[in-house]
Amino acid sequence: MAESTNTEIDLSQYPHINKGLAGIVAFSSTKSFIDGEKGELIYAGYDIDTLAENASFEEVCFLLWNDRLPNQEELDGLNTKLQNNRELPEPVLNYIKSTSKNAEPMAVLRTAVSMLGDFHEVQTDDDKEFRLNQAISITAKIPTVIAAFDRARNGKNIVAPLDEKSTAYNFLYMLNDEEPGEKAEQTMNLCLILHAEHGMNASTFTNRAICSTESDMYSSVTGAIGALKGPLHGGANQQVMNMLMDIEEKDADPVEYVHGRLERKEKIMGFGHRVYKTMDPRARILRGMSKELSEETGHENLYEWSEAILKTMKDEKDIDPNVDFFSATVYYSMGIKPDLYTCIFAMSRVSGWTGHYIEQAENNRLVRPRAMYVGEKNKDWVPVENR
Amino acid sequence: MAESTNTEIDLSQYPHINKGLAGIVAFSSTKSFIDGEKGELIYAGYDIDTLAENASFEEVCFLLWNDRLPNQEELDGLNTKLQNNRELPEPVLNYIKSTSKNAEPMAVLRTAVSMLGDFHEVQTDDDKEFRLNQAISITAKIPTVIAAFDRARNGKNIVAPLDEKSTAYNFLYMLNDEEPGEKAEQTMNLCLILHAEHGMNASTFTNRAICSTESDMYSSVTGAIGALKGPLHGGANQQVMNMLMDIEEKDADPVEYVHGRLERKEKIMGFGHRVYKTMDPRARILRGMSKELSEETGHENLYEWSEAILKTMKDEKDIDPNVDFFSATVYYSMGIKPDLYTCIFAMSRVSGWTGHYIEQAENNRLVRPRAMYVGEKNKDWVPVENR
Repeated sequence: MAESTNTEIDLSQYPHINKGLAGIVAFSSTKSFIDGEKGELIYAGYDIDTLAENASFEEVCFLLWNDRLPNQEELDGLNTKLQNNRELPEPVLNYIKSTSKNAEPMAVLRTAVSMLGDFHEVQTDDDKEFRLNQAISITAKIPTVIAAFDRARNGKNIVAPLDEKSTAYNFLYMLNDEEPGEKAEQTMNLCLILHAEHGMNASTFTNRAICSTESDMYSSVTGAIGALKGPLHGGANQQVMNMLMDIEEKDADPVEYVHGRLERKEKIMGFGHRVYKTMDPRARILRGMSKELSEETGHENLYEWSEAILKTMKDEKDIDPNVDFFSATVYYSMGIKPDLYTCIFAMSRVSGWTGHYIEQAENNRLVRPRAMYVGEKNKDWVPVENR
Repeated sequence: MAESTNTEIDLSQYPHINKGLAGIVAFSSTKSFIDGEKGELIYAGYDIDTLAENASFEEVCFLLWNDRLPNQEELDGLNTKLQNNRELPEPVLNYIKSTSKNAEPMAVLRTAVSMLGDFHEVQTDDDKEFRLNQAISITAKIPTVIAAFDRARNGKNIVAPLDEKSTAYNFLYMLNDEEPGEKAEQTMNLCLILHAEHGMNASTFTNRAICSTESDMYSSVTGAIGALKGPLHGGANQQVMNMLMDIEEKDADPVEYVHGRLERKEKIMGFGHRVYKTMDPRARILRGMSKELSEETGHENLYEWSEAILKTMKDEKDIDPNVDFFSATVYYSMGIKPDLYTCIFAMSRVSGWTGHYIEQAENNRLVRPRAMYVGEKNKDWVPVENR
């Protein structure tokens, strides 16, 4: 039996392998800037605090697609287009209704977005306009997919999207079949803004790599959803919530719980980031929101545990929470099920993905790094009966 | 109106941008080795010529998943598993039957593979075994998806897969609803071997990037299909055929046709490769097959035009054909429609993708390069009415 002898290879003779491509600069981009030392995040010129204070998610979409804020006419035009694009084609709705109720929401979203490509807009002569219309169409439909699947799997009626109101309002309305309050709409709008864009993360990068073969936007967003689905990327806030619920279930002391996990060398989700050396500015904004919301909704314990965990992690490991850590309690306080958190991340991040798609398509180069071969060569064929 | 002023930025002050990640080594791998100077391609120790002469596609799958060839018992076991995994879950078949007949076959394949994730195998304690079983399941089902959609869109009955025979045989059987001849099976088997693996191309890279977030294999393969779909990657052989058919339709002289395109600075598909500096060894093997098949099936003209185009491109531009160039005429001679060529590429390459997934998962690091921000900073918020 011919066994591979990789272990005998002297790796020192090979050039440097940039594992994970850490530190390698692959693109220039006008979409976002992160100062990891200062804890600063900018979307196309505007600080995240400025946007969190002033913008609607729809304005942020326009900003990420056009590198500037819209005037009133442009914003009205975008809102109308988004509102008119919320309905799903019948076959996509049929899939959502008929697939396994145990399917993962992110997997269903991945399939539904892919399927939308079968009904895609007719190509226009104007490439820029065509891409913008696709970005609008996909961004408008993702909330409908998420809400429809959540209701379908729970045996509830599917709520048709409104052709008015904000993305945040309409999503909460479709999810719960009731008009959301002003506070809930504001909170959801803010969450959508905070997750919209974040430089060259794994899903945005996947999205650009797919775009770079001149593939279509449905392929890119579908691939990005697949990447975001992973526990090391978008899957983390769901795991933060699972941890908090585990503490509740075990009636554990959160500080002891964290110590126990650290001693067993288990990961504490929602901490640390390859880029930020201080607290993620999004975590800072969400922290305040989490406090406020958990008090209002009677989930003070969750917020208090979060703060206790944060302090323990800072004392023990000197690492700060990332965006996932407090978004978990915010979503939970809003009554959203943990396995939808990553979908809501996607619902927001699609604005950044499609912005990066447009940027990549306008100045493309095929993304194709190398791999270093560390296997054998020139092996002779041995017929199967002699192996 | 606040306009972006990116053009004023002095890029020279920024560090080097590795556009397209060209030349950057991102991984070590035992899956394949390409010597672009010599025109050499190795899969996990074995030269492509050795495999083309001796192997079955199923043996190559085993090789790419395990880094060694199977013994008789292992090969029989794999064949049985592949044969028993060919049937599609009912909802996937329903989607294929009911979606738009004008949908792109690669888009349908992307959606169908994504949807298979809703019915995925129960996780076993043994990660390696779990991944291998998923690789087998996906590899077994892709041919069924392709054949079913091609028949459905043409209003023909869908042919259920056989639970015996090779992947190549079964695919041709399902596609045409008739038993293929020995020659056709051999040719298809050879094409599947030649396209199975090719280092760090854009789709394999996308697949590893998605895997690196610890996302599932369905996400990775779905993303890879999206990347392969692009005209700069897997979409090229279809475009080669479109070019040959354009020559036929216009009753053009192929040499003059190529000159015309070159003068108009239009791309000639199927030529050049970022890695090979000489003829791609797969193109060499396919060239002989293309000659033989086109003579047998009365498509000598296509082969002759291919040779004329090859000579013109060598004389004018000193570039060699790549794997896409001759695979186009081979598939055409087999009676396969051009818009399925990229799907057949995927049907083969899934073995490499899943091999890389297994390799990445066993020694993972999140893939996350950087982008260089070239936009503005610290812009003040201007209320929408003042923009």
